[in-house]
Amino acid sequence: MTEKRIREILDGVAAGSMTPAAAFKHIRELPFEDLGFAKLDNHRSIRRGIPEVIFGEGKTADQLVAIGQRVLASGTNLIITRLAADKAQIVKRKIRALAYHPDARIGAVVKERVEPSGHGVVMVLSAGTSDIPVAEEAALCAELFGNRVARVYDVGVAGIHRLLEHREALTKARVVICIAGMEGALPSVVGGLVAAPVIAVPTSTGYGASFGGVAALLGMLNSCASNVTVVNIDNGFGAAYVASCINRV
Amino acid sequence: MTEKRIREILDGVAAGSMTPAAAFKHIRELPFEDLGFAKLDNHRSIRRGIPEVIFGEGKTADQLVAIGQRVLASGTNLIITRLAADKAQIVKRKIRALAYHPDARIGAVVKERVEPSGHGVVMVLSAGTSDIPVAEEAALCAELFGNRVARVYDVGVAGIHRLLEHREALTKARVVICIAGMEGALPSVVGGLVAAPVIAVPTSTGYGASFGGVAALLGMLNSCASNVTVVNIDNGFGAAYVASCINRV
Amino acid sequence: MTEKRIREILDGVAAGSMTPAAAFKHIRELPFEDLGFAKLDNHRSIRRGIPEVIFGEGKTADQLVAIGQRVLASGTNLIITRLAADKAQIVKRKIRALAYHPDARIGAVVKERVEPSGHGVVMVLSAGTSDIPVAEEAALCAELFGNRVARVYDVGVAGIHRLLEHREALTKARVVICIAGMEGALPSVVGGLVAAPVIAVPTSTGYGASFGGVAALLGMLNSCASNVTVVNIDNGFGAAYVASCINRV
Amino acid sequence: MTEKRIREILDGVAAGSMTPAAAFKHIRELPFEDLGFAKLDNHRSIRRGIPEVIFGEGKTADQLVAIGQRVLASGTNLIITRLAADKAQIVKRKIRALAYHPDARIGAVVKERVEPSGHGVVMVLSAGTSDIPVAEEAALCAELFGNRVARVYDVGVAGIHRLLEHREALTKARVVICIAGMEGALPSVVGGLVAAPVIAVPTSTGYGASFGGVAALLGMLNSCASNVTVVNIDNGFGAAYVASCINRV
Amino acid sequence: MTEKRIREILDGVAAGSMTPAAAFKHIRELPFEDLGFAKLDNHRSIRRGIPEVIFGEGKTADQLVAIGQRVLASGTNLIITRLAADKAQIVKRKIRALAYHPDARIGAVVKERVEPSGHGVVMVLSAGTSDIPVAEEAALCAELFGNRVARVYDVGVAGIHRLLEHREALTKARVVICIAGMEGALPSVVGGLVAAPVIAVPTSTGYGASFGGVAALLGMLNSCASNVTVVNIDNGFGAAYVASCINRV
Amino acid sequence: MTEKRIREILDGVAAGSMTPAAAFKHIRELPFEDLGFAKLDNHRSIRRGIPEVIFGEGKTADQLVAIGQRVLASGTNLIITRLAADKAQIVKRKIRALAYHPDARIGAVVKERVEPSGHGVVMVLSAGTSDIPVAEEAALCAELFGNRVARVYDVGVAGIHRLLEHREALTKARVVICIAGMEGALPSVVGGLVAAPVIAVPTSTGYGASFGGVAALLGMLNSCASNVTVVNIDNGFGAAYVASCINRV
Amino acid sequence: MTEKRIREILDGVAAGSMTPAAAFKHIRELPFEDLGFAKLDNHRSIRRGIPEVIFGEGKTADQLVAIGQRVLASGTNLIITRLAADKAQIVKRKIRALAYHPDARIGAVVKERVEPSGHGVVMVLSAGTSDIPVAEEAALCAELFGNRVARVYDVGVAGIHRLLEHREALTKARVVICIAGMEGALPSVVGGLVAAPVIAVPTSTGYGASFGGVAALLGMLNSCASNVTVVNIDNGFGAAYVASCINRV
Amino acid sequence: MTEKRIREILDGVAAGSMTPAAAFKHIRELPFEDLGFAKLDNHRSIRRGIPEVIFGEGKTADQLVAIGQRVLASGTNLIITRLAADKAQIVKRKIRALAYHPDARIGAVVKERVEPSGHGVVMVLSAGTSDIPVAEEAALCAELFGNRVARVYDVGVAGIHRLLEHREALTKARVVICIAGMEGALPSVVGGLVAAPVIAVPTSTGYGASFGGVAALLGMLNSCASNVTVVNIDNGFGAAYVASCINRV
Repeated sequence: MTEKRIREILDGVAAGSMTPAAAFKHIRELPFEDLGFAKLDNHRSIRRGIPEVIFGEGKTADQLVAIGQRVLASGTNLIITRLAADKAQIVKRKIRALAYHPDARIGAVVKERVEPSGHGVVMVLSAGTSDIPVAEEAALCAELFGNRVARVYDVGVAGIHRLLEHREALTKARVVICIAGMEGALPSVVGGLVAAPVIAVPTSTGYGASFGGVAALLGMLNSCASNVTVVNIDNGFGAAYVASCINRV
Repeated sequence: MTEKRIREILDGVAAGSMTPAAAFKHIRELPFEDLGFAKLDNHRSIRRGIPEVIFGEGKTADQLVAIGQRVLASGTNLIITRLAADKAQIVKRKIRALAYHPDARIGAVVKERVEPSGHGVVMVLSAGTSDIPVAEEAALCAELFGNRVARVYDVGVAGIHRLLEHREALTKARVVICIAGMEGALPSVVGGLVAAPVIAVPTSTGYGASFGGVAALLGMLNSCASNVTVVNIDNGFGAAYVASCINRV
Repeated sequence: MTEKRIREILDGVAAGSMTPAAAFKHIRELPFEDLGFAKLDNHRSIRRGIPEVIFGEGKTADQLVAIGQRVLASGTNLIITRLAADKAQIVKRKIRALAYHPDARIGAVVKERVEPSGHGVVMVLSAGTSDIPVAEEAALCAELFGNRVARVYDVGVAGIHRLLEHREALTKARVVICIAGMEGALPSVVGGLVAAPVIAVPTSTGYGASFGGVAALLGMLNSCASNVTVVNIDNGFGAAYVASCINRV
Repeated sequence: MTEKRIREILDGVAAGSMTPAAAFKHIRELPFEDLGFAKLDNHRSIRRGIPEVIFGEGKTADQLVAIGQRVLASGTNLIITRLAADKAQIVKRKIRALAYHPDARIGAVVKERVEPSGHGVVMVLSAGTSDIPVAEEAALCAELFGNRVARVYDVGVAGIHRLLEHREALTKARVVICIAGMEGALPSVVGGLVAAPVIAVPTSTGYGASFGGVAALLGMLNSCASNVTVVNIDNGFGAAYVASCINRV
Repeated sequence: MTEKRIREILDGVAAGSMTPAAAFKHIRELPFEDLGFAKLDNHRSIRRGIPEVIFGEGKTADQLVAIGQRVLASGTNLIITRLAADKAQIVKRKIRALAYHPDARIGAVVKERVEPSGHGVVMVLSAGTSDIPVAEEAALCAELFGNRVARVYDVGVAGIHRLLEHREALTKARVVICIAGMEGALPSVVGGLVAAPVIAVPTSTGYGASFGGVAALLGMLNSCASNVTVVNIDNGFGAAYVASCINRV
Repeated sequence: MTEKRIREILDGVAAGSMTPAAAFKHIRELPFEDLGFAKLDNHRSIRRGIPEVIFGEGKTADQLVAIGQRVLASGTNLIITRLAADKAQIVKRKIRALAYHPDARIGAVVKERVEPSGHGVVMVLSAGTSDIPVAEEAALCAELFGNRVARVYDVGVAGIHRLLEHREALTKARVVICIAGMEGALPSVVGGLVAAPVIAVPTSTGYGASFGGVAALLGMLNSCASNVTVVNIDNGFGAAYVASCINRV
Repeated sequence: MTEKRIREILDGVAAGSMTPAAAFKHIRELPFEDLGFAKLDNHRSIRRGIPEVIFGEGKTADQLVAIGQRVLASGTNLIITRLAADKAQIVKRKIRALAYHPDARIGAVVKERVEPSGHGVVMVLSAGTSDIPVAEEAALCAELFGNRVARVYDVGVAGIHRLLEHREALTKARVVICIAGMEGALPSVVGGLVAAPVIAVPTSTGYGASFGGVAALLGMLNSCASNVTVVNIDNGFGAAYVASCINRV
Repeated sequence: MTEKRIREILDGVAAGSMTPAAAFKHIRELPFEDLGFAKLDNHRSIRRGIPEVIFGEGKTADQLVAIGQRVLASGTNLIITRLAADKAQIVKRKIRALAYHPDARIGAVVKERVEPSGHGVVMVLSAGTSDIPVAEEAALCAELFGNRVARVYDVGVAGIHRLLEHREALTKARVVICIAGMEGALPSVVGGLVAAPVIAVPTSTGYGASFGGVAALLGMLNSCASNVTVVNIDNGFGAAYVASCINRV
């Protein structure tokens, strides 16, 4: 969005040759801003009510700083996912407001706390200890997107009584996110216990024939519970994003 | 649920030895009924507000008749998906109320029309002509589950102007179901246009390196739009089910 | 085993040039018999206490008759698995004692009923209606191998209460066979409920991303319950065989 | 398991308002304990007679110490599998009783030696030198679970005479565990030599088209010997666990 | 090879303007002949001493007749592999000399019997009854290519004594062809018993996780016996061809 | 190409025993030069008008120097792709003229600037920030091969308005190269907007079910736009090479 | 495109209220027409100069007739690919002008013969007899798109002299289409012989480890010749389409 | 092989109670020697005329020294393949006679030079520079096994003239080993040029859709040349071993 074009629009408003409504429409239509190596979509935040989220893996600390500063300059909250601890250190030197959450591997700058809207609870379940990083990514993102979140971890199906203890809380959730690696069976059992939509997140937890999460992914896609949908392996952020879309319906 | 057990419960109520509340709890807990080869879950309909749905593929006409009659006897609506035209003919001889929808490959008996609840519209998009059977399965199921449904077919991404014409309608939908085979790119484009959750259904449409829908499935799981979740290949019913869960949130 | 060689041995015994013990050892060592296109292992039945089992798929009715008659001539029981109904008809014309079990797709001739040994019960569980052919193959084979068998069908994990109702019976089984297609989650839940070994049989039930049973197979191999082992897709016979080996330990 | 609840139960027993039998049943039902990031199942040891086993891979030394100390506090033996030598060093500083077995990559604390029960021998076979780490994991776990174990290593099928030398010992084993990478053919040959159940463990040994153990896994799933079942790639612990379940039948 | 060009060459020889040696060189260089839809390589037979072999699958009976007649016209023997019985019937009406071998699914016209060269024996082993069609394709082709062939069928590794009985014959073979489906372990055991090269042919025999011969193929590629090479699934002809190349070295 | 042979040819020309035309033909036929470990094809540059390109990955710095010096000695331009920054440093010590482009991971020595031929523009599009290294490899190679290049980056399909802004420029391009990871949908949308050929390059960008670029590759192979062809994952150079062949048609 | 809208536009032109240029622009922007189950893109033919092509597989004869009649009504040529002979018969009853080409499995109505543009030759090569249907689909489509086409069939790389005979013709082609199944090596050899772009089409020809064309597809994607791009398995039409785009550059 | 047993045998010979022939037979039957972690097969060298070959990858330097010293003590030559340079350094400190060949990654101790037997030449071809390590492994092993070897490197099919230059030498080879990565097309072209058996070795050279050598492997398995057999990816040693078996036939 070149300065020139914005000035023309505003001059037009000042001169009375363009109504404010028309000007707003024009600005709303100016959709992104060129950083050279990445085009930010500043208005998505306004259109969707969700902060700008940067996928940190495979970007250098320098790239993250550059993108992050531009996001913050535009006034929206900033979330960086898949942010390794050492890279977070470097980013923090330039963006001092960054809070780093090691369990979730997330760095965030929350300028304006989003109030939990009055809607329901997003429940995040995880099957095993090793699934916690993905579960925390989902839970923390869901919170940062303005949802009330309940966490229940380590309730894998081989100890079904551990899950059944939470049955009552489960039936009250508006959306359920199920994080599981290995055989990925948790969403099927949970899906049978609740009427809410269940978002299944396979994790790369496991070894051998888990094939980096493929076994869990296939298990979830073939779930015999009909209220289950699936996102990519280890995609805790995506699950939180969709859960948020649903919770705000 | 054997008659004997129900009578005992009701006799107990009559005799005053069991309060109605306790009796209700007992009956609610009697969860299924044994057909010998399949256990029906009669109360799911009550608990979830969704009719009993039978997966017709791989079941004989005789098995479908037996299950169908029992479902109808319990008073709920009946839906049979993946029902081939010739098998439908046979089932219809025994279950005369069955209406067969060849485009959707669905047979249904609707005893009590579910009124569209006041909520939003479920929009069903399909990329190509060959995806229509799955799209119709999704659209018809969504209607039978009590949703208002809008259909927009043949809007594949290689003719992007065809999709963009429907942009306004799209932004008004409460849930969007995207049906696509081949490269499965439709949900990514749609996901970027709407704030609603998008349920992606890969279809087995295609040949060669589409591997029976795997290419579309992988494309959808890797969608760069964050509001996309995925169900199994050709699973139009599942998409409708989840869309219904979301629409009724 | 040519007649000539057996006669020599027996003549030797008769002439006193060979002790009966030596003769027995010789005969025990005569391991198979040449049919031209298949070598029968007549003594396996003696060594293992299990009837000769023929895999019927991919063999012509004529081949089955030829093999079957030779098996029967040797005095052992005969089991033909994966026997299609129409092929069974043809075989039956030549082997009139053949009893055909359509649910299990098994043809069997039981000359001498094997008494259930005093040991424990082999429990056969199936997740869905479509898994019953494999479950019946397992259950019937286990019976024909001399085990007491308990069947519990249609107890898939999306309706966990259906399974939990059988919890007490489950904990009494000496071996549990779990038959499941789709996501193949049943063995994980069952494995957590029992201390007995669980043999998981993936089935080719399902569609799309079930890939003919691969999803279930991977789910079972990655089971988070440690007492689960796995056999090939649809291999009900193999599960029964191993269960029998364990039950007779 | 909060102290409060246990005290209530015991007070009840003391006061005579609860029989010891009822109290025992209550305590047996108290199934787990919350560590924040992992729920321990203290009673599994009692219910199954097998120590608590922690999967060491992918857990930090700190996590292992925290879980390990809690396990030991509950009075049961501790086994950590897939424990790298350097991580073992760190854990040992906090849990000094830990004995580290580098061949098996296992760390263990045995408070109370489990006496080999009177039952049969678990025989552990390995095909090649590179399979020994998995074989040792299986053998050592089986010993720690209270079984008598016999090891026969480097008896791959390309030198069949090496295996046949052990034929007599083989036929005496109650359960046989076969560890093999590459083509994974060992269980098929062994399965034909014994009447006992054979548990096959594919290993990731090999290169190129072994695909990290997939070739061996598929070979074992397709074994032409009917007494073979399979566990996940490199899962020596799982094989020992099932072998122990079978040996204690 | 147009008549015109051959006549020119021969006229040249007759006229003395070309030496016979030069003419021979010219003719040897005329490499193929155009049928419109297939280019025959008439001289391969001379250069290699092996008849022209047509792959029958996927060609119509008419195409086979056209190609076959041209082959026969050129004076060489004809072999059609993968020839279904019904298609053979039709071909035979036009090419009456065709002998059909149903076990091997081969049709052949042998104008001039190739004398077994003085070299060694090609031994063909098969693991199971279902592998016989591929084994017969290999054995019959090897005979038609002029080799002495020994067949030993149904010697799968789960009954190792059946194979070991033929140990002496095996060590005398100059080349060994091993046909096996399922886990494909036979070549590894055989490779360890002989010093000759072993050609392994995986077959599509099996079900479930055999994946149409992939399990056997991978097993053979990962054989721990170093004298094993592999050809494509079900490629009995190819194995015979290579065996013949080796036997004639 | 030994000096000796070239001298003989040229001496022949000088002496009149060989015509220049014949000499040219001889030289043109001298196709390569032996470096011991690699055969350079010096004349390809002349025949095709494209510099010699070395694939840098998996070659040592020493090997690159040796090959590079020989290329330069033959007078053609030099391009080394997939050249890591640290390796470039080492190569530069010996080949000082080497210019290193870190974004494209390319090292190049341009002795003679190739003038952009009068033809059309090669447009290079990339879907996301992480695809830039591959996009730059394509763009820089295309420039070094003598094409005018236009770059438009970060125009992924989930923000379709970003792409549509460039619609006019797109329709003017003579060839379009589309770089995309994840679901690889960009070429389908672009293919529908232009009449020019579109070369699709899948990238290994992504995680989980992107399987290192396989999802994008399959998506592109199944593109519903008919003017799309595909090259290997991350093969920016190959796309530039083909684009150059087309642009020079 | 409703008649009403076109009339309004034309009336406007007649009335002088709209310039012809503006009217043309309007009409060009009217992009498609709704058939209920498929949206035709009538103007693509004008914009691209290529007839409307219908993919016949998976569409019923009735659907093909409906789409075909509408295409013809719009005045453009019609091509139906993957049209089985029996379906063609039925279509022909309604669309009598349809010419059916059994080798190419194509039905076409050519109202106006497209003159071969003055540009170069598209050369179509095929490796084997079984690849001819795909080769003919490519060759016939290329002709119908207005290209001069040269066919060279049955020049697989195992008889390299057959290919080299056509070397001179090859170097004169402007685009080369290479059709090959099995190992798919033809494009690599051809790519090394020509400077033109090579479009590789893998075919599903083969058996066993060809996996329905995957082996050829992978071979082509990994071609060591840099001027090779790839389209989907059996996609002769797509290759012709891209070749036409290139030839018209 | 315990000393005790050998002495008894020899004493028996000395005492006349055992003939020398019988003693030889006994000794020949003493097949291996127990190292604790690996069983050496000392007599294989005698039986096969090939030195003991150790696969160095995945074994520690200490293990290699222990096995190596035992091999040398038994009097045979020693070859260690896949031996990294740094590990070779360590082994050399203990086994000073070890000669290390970095190109082939082989360490060898040749006590007694095997004279090239009078037979034919084993020709080793490689397609590209990156394939040389595997090619050298094959070539050096073949030499150490007593064959005369000819090397022709960098003759990939995209520059077919480079290969054709060696046509005469090729036709004289008794066995040809073809090493190729990427599309693995070299064996098909070579197979068409020679009558000798061709052993194809796919290499893991390549990137993206080469999948670590799978593309080359599949290409070779589907070779349209009938005299091609295949070994595992990167298995240069195996190719040399089989070539040697064939050359000594």
